[in-house]
Amino acid sequence: MDNGAKIAVEPRSRPVMHAALVDAVERAGATVTDLAEADAIVWADPAAADELVPVVAAAPNARWVQLPYAGIETMADKLDHDHLWTCGKGVYAPDCAEWIMAALLTAFRDMPTFARATSWPPQSGRNLLGAKLTVLGGGGLAESFLELIAPWGCEVTCVRRSPADVPGAHRTVATPDRFDAVSTADAVIVCLALTAETTGIVDRELLAAMPNDAWLINVGRGGHVRNDDLIAALDAGTIAGAVLDVTDPEPLPADHPLWTYDNVLITPHVGNTPEMGLPRLAERVEENVRRWIRGDELIGPVDVDAGY
Amino acid sequence: MDNGAKIAVEPRSRPVMHAALVDAVERAGATVTDLAEADAIVWADPAAADELVPVVAAAPNARWVQLPYAGIETMADKLDHDHLWTCGKGVYAPDCAEWIMAALLTAFRDMPTFARATSWPPQSGRNLLGAKLTVLGGGGLAESFLELIAPWGCEVTCVRRSPADVPGAHRTVATPDRFDAVSTADAVIVCLALTAETTGIVDRELLAAMPNDAWLINVGRGGHVRNDDLIAALDAGTIAGAVLDVTDPEPLPADHPLWTYDNVLITPHVGNTPEMGLPRLAERVEENVRRWIRGDELIGPVDVDAGY
Repeated sequence: MDNGAKIAVEPRSRPVMHAALVDAVERAGATVTDLAEADAIVWADPAAADELVPVVAAAPNARWVQLPYAGIETMADKLDHDHLWTCGKGVYAPDCAEWIMAALLTAFRDMPTFARATSWPPQSGRNLLGAKLTVLGGGGLAESFLELIAPWGCEVTCVRRSPADVPGAHRTVATPDRFDAVSTADAVIVCLALTAETTGIVDRELLAAMPNDAWLINVGRGGHVRNDDLIAALDAGTIAGAVLDVTDPEPLPADHPLWTYDNVLITPHVGNTPEMGLPRLAERVEENVRRWIRGDELIGPVDVDAGY
Repeated sequence: MDNGAKIAVEPRSRPVMHAALVDAVERAGATVTDLAEADAIVWADPAAADELVPVVAAAPNARWVQLPYAGIETMADKLDHDHLWTCGKGVYAPDCAEWIMAALLTAFRDMPTFARATSWPPQSGRNLLGAKLTVLGGGGLAESFLELIAPWGCEVTCVRRSPADVPGAHRTVATPDRFDAVSTADAVIVCLALTAETTGIVDRELLAAMPNDAWLINVGRGGHVRNDDLIAALDAGTIAGAVLDVTDPEPLPADHPLWTYDNVLITPHVGNTPEMGLPRLAERVEENVRRWIRGDELIGPVDVDAGY
């Protein structure tokens, strides 16, 4: 079946990802072509942001570019209004939501202490059941997390830019009300995209507004947290601790002070691993190529001005 | 209001528990009396099994004894058919179900490795989302666990003595079919009461039937697992590892070989901690005393012959 759709899958710097996305495009019924002929591009290397502008320029007929990954902050300033841009928004949400649950339960149930023990430790731990949680962010990740936490009977407050209620949340408040929203939380969970507005949102003021026994959970980007302010809060004992799947920089250097706290658990950006993510990204690409062929609305459009 | 119900709360060896249960009895409207006058006994020290027979004998009018805790294996051989016995069955189920979720996510997401890391480790971890889980047990704890895991899209098989389907399970099979039931599992979760039939149920044969990448999770009792067989399976690499909230003996001595495995996480019987459990037990006692006064059926009756 030749439906006429010609899609370039570029660059080729990640052979496994490239092959999986070529398969996805072909499964959807399109033809994989070179850039000169392509009317759309599937971007196949999240790390190759520097090549984006010249590669897209080499495809004069391309009207749509599918980016991988949900967080596109390394590419956001390279997008123009001449193309339709889509990204992996929502693709990785279930995996990252699962990581949030793992982080909360690991922290609340003192698993790091037990993992380091070499003899029977004292009993400790607290319930996630019925806890008060504040989520910074109201997108697909927050929604996936709310689905997983639903049976726990938690009181979840979402803080977001837009005033629309997040489905499943107990209440949704606007960003300026974030200090009040974290003031009674047992945990504060960062699920935001990294933009100029959200960079450093977890600062001294927000950390000070959190109860002393509240955990900070970051599955957004390292840039959401001001490291110096976090370290000051840890030293002062004004938060319970932090579980960080993202850090600034990444990888976090071995001599960074955040490695020295027993109540800081750092995981190496595994909210979704490549093994978990590639099949999900391939499914999204296949679905979007099918929609492109049919002329339907694509999933995961990027708001070029907002940068996510 | 004197409704005539006279209840002894004994022994007094745990003052905090004793005080909380006295309050619960009085909130329900009964009078707390000594044993000679009591027509029921609320047992207030789970560790004092040796005193059970003489204390009950000192209360000639007592017809009902409320035992604390869900697992009563230390008392099971001391129960008679002259009294109605109830226990904390189901009281601790939500907390223990939460611990199971914490154990599964800690194991699947490699949290112990990350907790021990002092520099950026390699990415690792797998999804609990969509996993195949086999639960040994079909009681209140299994049901609570099934409620929490519901949004994960897992395929859960329950193995139980009775043929009745466990609500929320994908399938329920009888105990003799346990080997087949664990053969495709990503994790096997022990949620059983400890009886003559279930002691040592996790033995060489069951461990051998598990896939090499399957986790063993024990929140039942230490006696469900044959330690030597578990150690042999760990040495042979025929299971992924184990998360154990209960061990035989407890506390597990510091020189026990199970402390030496990176893929064994031992937690000190914290499925439900005293802080989590006492308010829940007090609620149950209050409810059962109200029922006793009204002549209604009590919650958590013990099957004296079955021993749980």
